[in-house]
Order: sequence, then C-alpha cells, then structure tokens
Amino acid sequence: MEKSPNTAKGKIDPWFVSGLVEGEGCFSVSFSFRKKLKVGIETRPSFSVSLNQRDLDLLQQLHAFFGCGAIRYSKSDRTYKYESRSISDLTRRIVPHFERYPLRGSKRRDFEIFADVCRKANANQHLNGKILRTIIEMAYEMNPSGKRRHDKKSLLRELDELKV
Amino acid sequence: MEKSPNTAKGKIDPWFVSGLVEGEGCFSVSFSFRKKLKVGIETRPSFSVSLNQRDLDLLQQLHAFFGCGAIRYSKSDRTYKYESRSISDLTRRIVPHFERYPLRGSKRRDFEIFADVCRKANANQHLNGKILRTIIEMAYEMNPSGKRRHDKKSLLRELDELKV
Repeated sequence: MEKSPNTAKGKIDPWFVSGLVEGEGCFSVSFSFRKKLKVGIETRPSFSVSLNQRDLDLLQQLHAFFGCGAIRYSKSDRTYKYESRSISDLTRRIVPHFERYPLRGSKRRDFEIFADVCRKANANQHLNGKILRTIIEMAYEMNPSGKRRHDKKSLLRELDELKV
Repeated sequence: MEKSPNTAKGKIDPWFVSGLVEGEGCFSVSFSFRKKLKVGIETRPSFSVSLNQRDLDLLQQLHAFFGCGAIRYSKSDRTYKYESRSISDLTRRIVPHFERYPLRGSKRRDFEIFADVCRKANANQHLNGKILRTIIEMAYEMNPSGKRRHDKKSLLRELDELKV
C-alpha cells in the first residue's frame, strides 16, 4: 500500500465531506404555519446526511467536523441522520464549508438556493412577507422529488390572507 | 462567497472522489460459470458508481479522473453507471486511488476485500482452484445486501466437481 496522506482515524478531509454530501446529503427548506408569527409561516432550513446504522461512526465524524447539529435515529427509514437546523450554525458553519469546497453535481443548485435562504433568514428577512414569498418560491425549486407537508399554493394563500 | 480553492469546472479533488464513492460507489466481485476455463468459474471484479441522469456530468468527471472504464445507461433502475471492470485498470488505477485516499465508513471493508481479490486476479491466482475458493469466500463477505446470480454453495460445488 502506498503511503497514505490520511487514515480512517485521522481528521476527515473537507473535500471528502463535500463528496459524501454530494451523494448522501440533503439541503432543504420546509415551512410550518405559526399563528404567533406576523407572517404566519415559519421558515425552517435544514442540512442533513442520512446513513445506515453501520455508518454511524462516519456520521459522528461529520458531526465533529462541522461542530454543530445532532445525530438522531429515524424510525421511518431505519437510518441515522446527522442534521443541522440552527440558522446561526447553518450560516456560520455549514454554508461557508460548501462555498469553500463546492459540490460539483446537481446538488450544487440546491445548495445555492439553500445558502441564499439561510442568509436571508439570518438577516431576519423571512419575517418580511414580500421576501418570504420569494423564499417560498425559491424553496419549491429545490429537491423536486422530495415530499412536502404543505403545497406552495397553501403557503402563498396564507400570506394573501394575512395581507403581509 | 469566500475564495474557493476549486470550482465546479476545475479538476475534481481526489478526496471528493473518495467521499462520493463512500456514498454512491460499489465494489463487487461476481462470478460466472465458464466451461472453457480449467477452474470452470470466471472471477469478475467491478467498481461502479451509479447516479441519476441529472448527474451524468459528474460521472463524466469521474470517468476522466480515473482515465479508465465506461459510462452506460442502466434501464433497470434508470440510472447512469460509471464502471471499471478490467483487472489491469482496477489494479493500476482504481485500487491505488483508494489506498491513497481511503474510505472512512463501512465501505472501507468492502474495498479491502476487493483490492485483495484484484491483486490475486492480476497475478492470475484466480485460475488456481484453491485460491479461487478463498476468493469466493472473501467475495461473499462483501455487500451482504446485494443480489447475486449464483449462491456460494453452487460455485464451490462446481469446484468440487471439477476437482480443481
């Protein structure tokens, strides 16, 4: 075996993280109705990587690499999921990583929308009705094959009704 | 956006390749009955990465990176597959890459068995009945969830019958 610049026990390479996420990662923005909010809708960006139990150790390496988020077991698909949802962590840790070590496939477009939404949310622009409309439109261009709890029309209708 | 050390159009980083393969790659060793061979069984190692059509460009980047193998469309699962099957290419190009930029998850064990089989096949040891038995035993420890055309018993029975 050639001399290896890195071993399984060494620090994970940032490009390895991006390659793994290209295949197994998910950037998503979901929405929930929240009566307490003036705009009536909460914006919830999430970055996650789901792997089989046999790769729990690898998820723990990812968790340590990003220094934020949490790992939990997902009963529905029997996988473990590393997930980061805090707007602050997403903006300070997750987004900058993928700007520095960019994705190279179709997931890159999802990431670019995601990064834009995180920046807007970090600046509290998701609490402005007009910008929230833009965010909703952007989010529904991502992961077209994914399931969603609310359809786009019902979210936009809520904004119409609240006149925000 | 921070200055990026690499762009989507630049050369793919070797660690990115390993990360992507950790998630989406497959190291496998299959077997076919071949009357023309003295041992009656052909050993066929294969390294492949299957992605959706929207990531065909990424597969082409992988193809260029390894400088061997081919991309083809798989009707059965509607994906494109990059695959390298030549023992010489696997030994000279594929295996050395993953020794230098190792996998970090459960696929690492599959790779280690795969690399050992490739080295044995490259030295024509798969044409020796006793070593072929070892190769078959090793191969059936890989990808336990994968489908196989032949079960291990029928392969070993063939070797028993040929008395090799």
